[in-house]
Amino acid sequence: MKASELAKIIGGSLIGDDVEIIACAGLEEARKGDVSFCKDPKHVAMVRRTAASVVILPVDWDNECPCASIRVADPDKACMAAAKLLAPPEPVRKSGVHPSAIVDPSVKIGEGVHIGPFTVIEKGVEIGDGAIIEAQVFIGEGCRIGSGTHIYPQVTLREGTVVGKDCIFHCGVRLGGDGYGFTNSRKSDGTIVIEKIPQLGIVEIGDGVEIGSNTTIDRARIGRTYIGPMTKIDNLVQIGHNVKVKGYSGLIAQSGVAGSTEIGYGCLIWAQAGISGHIKIADGVQVGPQTGVPQSLDGSIKYVIGTPAMSMKDLAAITLAPKMIQKLKAELKALKATVAAK
Amino acid sequence: MKASELAKIIGGSLIGDDVEIIACAGLEEARKGDVSFCKDPKHVAMVRRTAASVVILPVDWDNECPCASIRVADPDKACMAAAKLLAPPEPVRKSGVHPSAIVDPSVKIGEGVHIGPFTVIEKGVEIGDGAIIEAQVFIGEGCRIGSGTHIYPQVTLREGTVVGKDCIFHCGVRLGGDGYGFTNSRKSDGTIVIEKIPQLGIVEIGDGVEIGSNTTIDRARIGRTYIGPMTKIDNLVQIGHNVKVKGYSGLIAQSGVAGSTEIGYGCLIWAQAGISGHIKIADGVQVGPQTGVPQSLDGSIKYVIGTPAMSMKDLAAITLAPKMIQKLKAELKALKATVAAK
Amino acid sequence: MKASELAKIIGGSLIGDDVEIIACAGLEEARKGDVSFCKDPKHVAMVRRTAASVVILPVDWDNECPCASIRVADPDKACMAAAKLLAPPEPVRKSGVHPSAIVDPSVKIGEGVHIGPFTVIEKGVEIGDGAIIEAQVFIGEGCRIGSGTHIYPQVTLREGTVVGKDCIFHCGVRLGGDGYGFTNSRKSDGTIVIEKIPQLGIVEIGDGVEIGSNTTIDRARIGRTYIGPMTKIDNLVQIGHNVKVKGYSGLIAQSGVAGSTEIGYGCLIWAQAGISGHIKIADGVQVGPQTGVPQSLDGSIKYVIGTPAMSMKDLAAITLAPKMIQKLKAELKALKATVAAK
Repeated sequence: MKASELAKIIGGSLIGDDVEIIACAGLEEARKGDVSFCKDPKHVAMVRRTAASVVILPVDWDNECPCASIRVADPDKACMAAAKLLAPPEPVRKSGVHPSAIVDPSVKIGEGVHIGPFTVIEKGVEIGDGAIIEAQVFIGEGCRIGSGTHIYPQVTLREGTVVGKDCIFHCGVRLGGDGYGFTNSRKSDGTIVIEKIPQLGIVEIGDGVEIGSNTTIDRARIGRTYIGPMTKIDNLVQIGHNVKVKGYSGLIAQSGVAGSTEIGYGCLIWAQAGISGHIKIADGVQVGPQTGVPQSLDGSIKYVIGTPAMSMKDLAAITLAPKMIQKLKAELKALKATVAAK
Repeated sequence: MKASELAKIIGGSLIGDDVEIIACAGLEEARKGDVSFCKDPKHVAMVRRTAASVVILPVDWDNECPCASIRVADPDKACMAAAKLLAPPEPVRKSGVHPSAIVDPSVKIGEGVHIGPFTVIEKGVEIGDGAIIEAQVFIGEGCRIGSGTHIYPQVTLREGTVVGKDCIFHCGVRLGGDGYGFTNSRKSDGTIVIEKIPQLGIVEIGDGVEIGSNTTIDRARIGRTYIGPMTKIDNLVQIGHNVKVKGYSGLIAQSGVAGSTEIGYGCLIWAQAGISGHIKIADGVQVGPQTGVPQSLDGSIKYVIGTPAMSMKDLAAITLAPKMIQKLKAELKALKATVAAK
Repeated sequence: MKASELAKIIGGSLIGDDVEIIACAGLEEARKGDVSFCKDPKHVAMVRRTAASVVILPVDWDNECPCASIRVADPDKACMAAAKLLAPPEPVRKSGVHPSAIVDPSVKIGEGVHIGPFTVIEKGVEIGDGAIIEAQVFIGEGCRIGSGTHIYPQVTLREGTVVGKDCIFHCGVRLGGDGYGFTNSRKSDGTIVIEKIPQLGIVEIGDGVEIGSNTTIDRARIGRTYIGPMTKIDNLVQIGHNVKVKGYSGLIAQSGVAGSTEIGYGCLIWAQAGISGHIKIADGVQVGPQTGVPQSLDGSIKYVIGTPAMSMKDLAAITLAPKMIQKLKAELKALKATVAAK
């Protein structure tokens, strides 16, 4: 696309050469062929250094710019419009079942559903209107998928999984694997005996839930592992059996929740945090990155951090302990001298 | 299923309405159509609040119950029976090779083996009697799978992987990927040179090993990465090249073991723990959640926690340091006053 | 292979029985049928205990050996040669498209490219000479794959992903999933409103990058998530949207980098470390295992560790705090006694 064309579409005026534009990128990572953007004169140094071919700037920008620019009234809006124009086009997933897909005759498929190549859908599955099931997906017996849900390639749903409307599951999501449940005992001769506890429940996902790549959610031992509506789960997250996430919560990458724990409404679990089993996290609590939560959180502390989880203030006190100790040591030494001199 | 039918099967007597039951669930997460259970009068408040349609209770339960109940002699046993009855039926995987599977003519397939759709099995593979290889699995050249082993969809076994009897591999397990091995040097001009070290070994899995969804186990650089019998590995666990897990151990979700480390018999590695390379963990040691183990553990401490790994007592001392410092500070202040007054 | 044959190939002389050899393994894990190796008389105890059938030893080895041995001038070189000979043969991936693969007619395929069974390649994709795309891979619309790149089974590349030359992607790698981006607000009645932010960018991977099993790299919100040349990424690593890894860096298993962060040249991020979003890690910095990095690192500390990231010395001071406190306590007590006695 020519810079002049882009200027026209986003309602701006081009200053400088009418170069060819291929993509959109931030000022620092931009290269030849990119359009970038800046709305704040504070970042003039970044504009000066950019390798972009064109920069979207406010109309009243009176600093230099090393390349062509497009002047607009609202750079934020213009930049989002440019990004959408230059983004890789979203693939069209037409209604219909790909001839290579293996779909059991008993499967109930709604209106306008897309089922991609090499996907396997077993008996008794129900798929709501407008759902998109991409390539190489596995949907086990008796699963139910709500309308408008989008399942990316290579997702697996074990038997009995129930999914709400308008969910998005990214590549490699695993729902309904057996939970980690074993009995461990010793015979009189000391031999260890390990037996598997049957995992008889299911996974149930509410409406509007998004689940990131390679995240795993285990089926309940009995009953349901439940992810409430509008919960947003990032990549590589682990959710144990019988966990209940009430809804409207976020779980960031590589965090984990052990079995039978309940996460309240509107919680935010930051990256790599770990939450023990059989506890409750109160509504609205935030668990900081890499935090380890061994006990229930009643909400009296809104943001916990550290292992074991504590307030920011308590963690800072531990980090500052060596400095405090040095101070005490010096004071003690001084006092000793005073005492000796008396 | 009607509540009366369930009561009959589990040998109990129904009190209240003969409602329709769909599933089994814990008291707190149960909803209309669920049967739940309680054996302990201590939890009467949870019974009172439950939304279940029926609750399985001991015969001598004399507290209230907000819905129908089934009275039984042994609620634990009855509840497990009910859960099994109401669980999504385990899919039947019939003996035979799905016509869409691509199986090299040289593959040796035992009696009663199931091979699912879109599965690829390369030359020289041997599969023992009664093994189940589900849909969309990849088994590379020369792998050997023991009898009775169950491989769920979308597992990959790279060439040469050896698997024992009665193993269970959940969706997305990756066995035999190249270990992380590179040489790193600098030319005289400061340029970094990175070269791949060939990873020439294999992965060998003992009998009765279960491996959770999306867990990864790397092939050895030379020789074998070995997971001993009856080891139970949870989801998203990482096992580096040349690791040796002697057997009868558990590795909980998101834990990781770096290259060439040996884990003894009957160890338990809790969630998100990390174990350094080239060390040994003695038989029976437990490594707590999020613990980081930089050095070998000889078993003198049975449970380690924290980073670096230490005893519970030592970790508590660090956590309590700020409190101890405040106390010392106060004492020192008092002593200063005493000295000044003398 | 007979021990005598191996001896001949590696240019050594066999001492003892001409046993059959199946595999190569370290002294400690070796079993019957294995050839092992030792170059250093220091490890004579390990040689004495080994269950190997043959051990490769230096010509001047004058310690005992419980089994046959092959004496060579350079045990390191001989052992590597033996390992290569006995390794499971690397599967041959012949040039050509497997008849079961679904490749859009618009796809441009270079010379000598292998495309495996059940692989799906969508429209507009370009694949360079000599690339190997194994079984069950998904490559979305408009992706570009450089020459010599090897993609193992069950990798997914979402639309628009750009990959350099000579890369290696292990099983289950997920490139181009949507980044974690949501707006979070509250209506006047307190209801939480969560909306998805479109993720319009791509993932771009430089030349010579290796990515481990089940690692996930998200597409940029706008522009590119960029992994620079020769970067080596281990298993189960998470890279957020708009991250920039300049190149020649290593990211070890289960580490994670949050959105928009920049990792300099020649960095090493150890296992399970987590790096916050919107920060910069200077060239050559090492981030220790399980470290949490909340702020930019300017390179003044070359190796950071702990959460929050600090120097080894500072972390040691925290770990030693309880001991220091005990010492201060004792000194204070002694001083109190002195004061009281005056």
